[in-house]
Amino acid sequence: MPQHKVHNFSAGPGVLPQAAIDGAMDALRNFSGTGLSLITVSHRGKEFEAVMEEVVANAKELLGIPAGYSVIFVQGGASLQFYMVALNLLPNGRKAAYLNTGTWATKAIQEAQLVGQVEVVASSEDKNFSYIPKQYAVPADAAYFHITTNNTIYGTELHSDLDSKVPLVADMSSDICSRPVDISKYDLIYAGAQKNIGPAGATMVIVKDELLQGIQKKLPSMLDYRVHVKNGSMYNTPPVFSIFVINETFKWLKSIGGLSEMYKLNLEKAGLLYGEIDENPLFVGTAAVEDRSLMNVCFVLKDKSMDNEFFDYCKQHHLSGLKGHRSVGGFRASIYNAMGRDSVEALVHTMKEFASKYA
Amino acid sequence: MPQHKVHNFSAGPGVLPQAAIDGAMDALRNFSGTGLSLITVSHRGKEFEAVMEEVVANAKELLGIPAGYSVIFVQGGASLQFYMVALNLLPNGRKAAYLNTGTWATKAIQEAQLVGQVEVVASSEDKNFSYIPKQYAVPADAAYFHITTNNTIYGTELHSDLDSKVPLVADMSSDICSRPVDISKYDLIYAGAQKNIGPAGATMVIVKDELLQGIQKKLPSMLDYRVHVKNGSMYNTPPVFSIFVINETFKWLKSIGGLSEMYKLNLEKAGLLYGEIDENPLFVGTAAVEDRSLMNVCFVLKDKSMDNEFFDYCKQHHLSGLKGHRSVGGFRASIYNAMGRDSVEALVHTMKEFASKYA
Repeated sequence: MPQHKVHNFSAGPGVLPQAAIDGAMDALRNFSGTGLSLITVSHRGKEFEAVMEEVVANAKELLGIPAGYSVIFVQGGASLQFYMVALNLLPNGRKAAYLNTGTWATKAIQEAQLVGQVEVVASSEDKNFSYIPKQYAVPADAAYFHITTNNTIYGTELHSDLDSKVPLVADMSSDICSRPVDISKYDLIYAGAQKNIGPAGATMVIVKDELLQGIQKKLPSMLDYRVHVKNGSMYNTPPVFSIFVINETFKWLKSIGGLSEMYKLNLEKAGLLYGEIDENPLFVGTAAVEDRSLMNVCFVLKDKSMDNEFFDYCKQHHLSGLKGHRSVGGFRASIYNAMGRDSVEALVHTMKEFASKYA
Repeated sequence: MPQHKVHNFSAGPGVLPQAAIDGAMDALRNFSGTGLSLITVSHRGKEFEAVMEEVVANAKELLGIPAGYSVIFVQGGASLQFYMVALNLLPNGRKAAYLNTGTWATKAIQEAQLVGQVEVVASSEDKNFSYIPKQYAVPADAAYFHITTNNTIYGTELHSDLDSKVPLVADMSSDICSRPVDISKYDLIYAGAQKNIGPAGATMVIVKDELLQGIQKKLPSMLDYRVHVKNGSMYNTPPVFSIFVINETFKWLKSIGGLSEMYKLNLEKAGLLYGEIDENPLFVGTAAVEDRSLMNVCFVLKDKSMDNEFFDYCKQHHLSGLKGHRSVGGFRASIYNAMGRDSVEALVHTMKEFASKYA
């Protein structure tokens, strides 16, 4: 082990609660008293079935999911959801509305176009996706309206739940469980686990049962939400380990007081870091102030020629994963749920020190 | 921890090498000296990229994969491959040939029928899939011929590599790496990890590059083999943990001497258990003798009324996961690669004892 704590600002897979990692190690040794490792037992055994029931119950409790919604866990990440959403929800001859707020939204649009007609109601591509468009009209006859609530690469985030007259579909991969959400405003939510809730390899989908009743097509089993709902995420062998760790993360979220408390902590952490970016003479934030993400804080050095110097400085201070995405450059501090305030403070401290040394 | 070693005969997820589980626990604590947990670091970091390179190299070495083949890791299990194979390899207006040897082969056929025309060249459904059909003709104009090399539920297995005039596609989920295979006879092989090579959540695909050059269709990205090959299994976030453990399992396979040595051990273990089934007056095997699987040993009590008694007896002797699939009944001992000879001996001993007590 390195001697110093490494502060993990990775954009994803990203930091997870130590309690969840410890739970995973225990279960790898001896899962639920079976004397066997979690990854060697049948998913149809009573021990794992209990985990599956618990993770769904915990998701419902934490997110306040009302009756009439199902929670399932599937594979393939958000990238497979981009296609599955359209395949399931876009009937022949209809169109779907999309808000284009970044790379992942663009990919969602491209995959949906393989299924049917897509109308992009607004895009912030004109300013390198540095803001969330606010003036647009969603056609009343759209089969659904698709949004990306947090844009990992550009550091923008939708801070409230939209009102939509057509079914609202949201990719919440990178801000799921980071604040209380009014689930009743959404018809389908999907989230790749590897940012805020667990290891890569599982995707949580929350879907209004009513929405699935409208599907007329015969679909491939693994791409059919109805199949996964009907089989309680056990149509085939689910990603057992990832689901187990998601449940451990949910238990941790409950232990700290649920999503209201998590949101408070996230506001504090982001406030600290954006405060430093705005005060520090060397740095500037890249996202529109009102759309700044609480999860991915993107910033650049005013003097780009100092980039490598700052990276090295961060490395010396055990700050890891701060490189910005190549399409934005600069720096990105991903400060997901499980990131402690101490890590944000360490970064802020390092930025201050760097400024006093090099300003 | 229970006081006694539990012998894990689970059909899948199933037993894995202790060395792989230990490696996973170490990496959860401190991955590759990063000071961070394996499940919290970027898949694009140099540490995980090294794992991805190594797992591909190890697969190629262990299985003797010739030049001109790619190895990728995808999500969704064999169940998603059932559809992906047809989507990628069955052009409009062509047909695909399938050998129906069980439940999973039947599902593969059903998913392919969503894409195009399927010809089932032979089926052993007439005798509850207790044998592998041998007399059949594959149409010369078939786009491919699909086989299931090991039938987990029925305990039958193809013991040699078929010669096929059309591209040969094999579901090897439950016997991958259990014996040396002549990869050059196959055009595409897929295997859900959770039987012989790793935790649920990753599927290994070995594909002849030439085969993919014939694809004319525009496919959804996540369902397109070309996309995964081109991106080295990193088009999106891969199932990091499962892939890591697969590599640990490959390292273990190499340490014991590779697939020739593994095959010898598997023959010995299966020989021991089938020997007891044939000698013991209480039991009878359900699969045709010449098609008996080395991985899943299916047997019944001649007197079905003793089933529960034998189950209880096994439980007392710390033998776990022996219940046969509901479509066959009786007992199934899954004795995958990682199962030690000691566990098979424990089962044989228990069968002998049970017979001397109750015969």
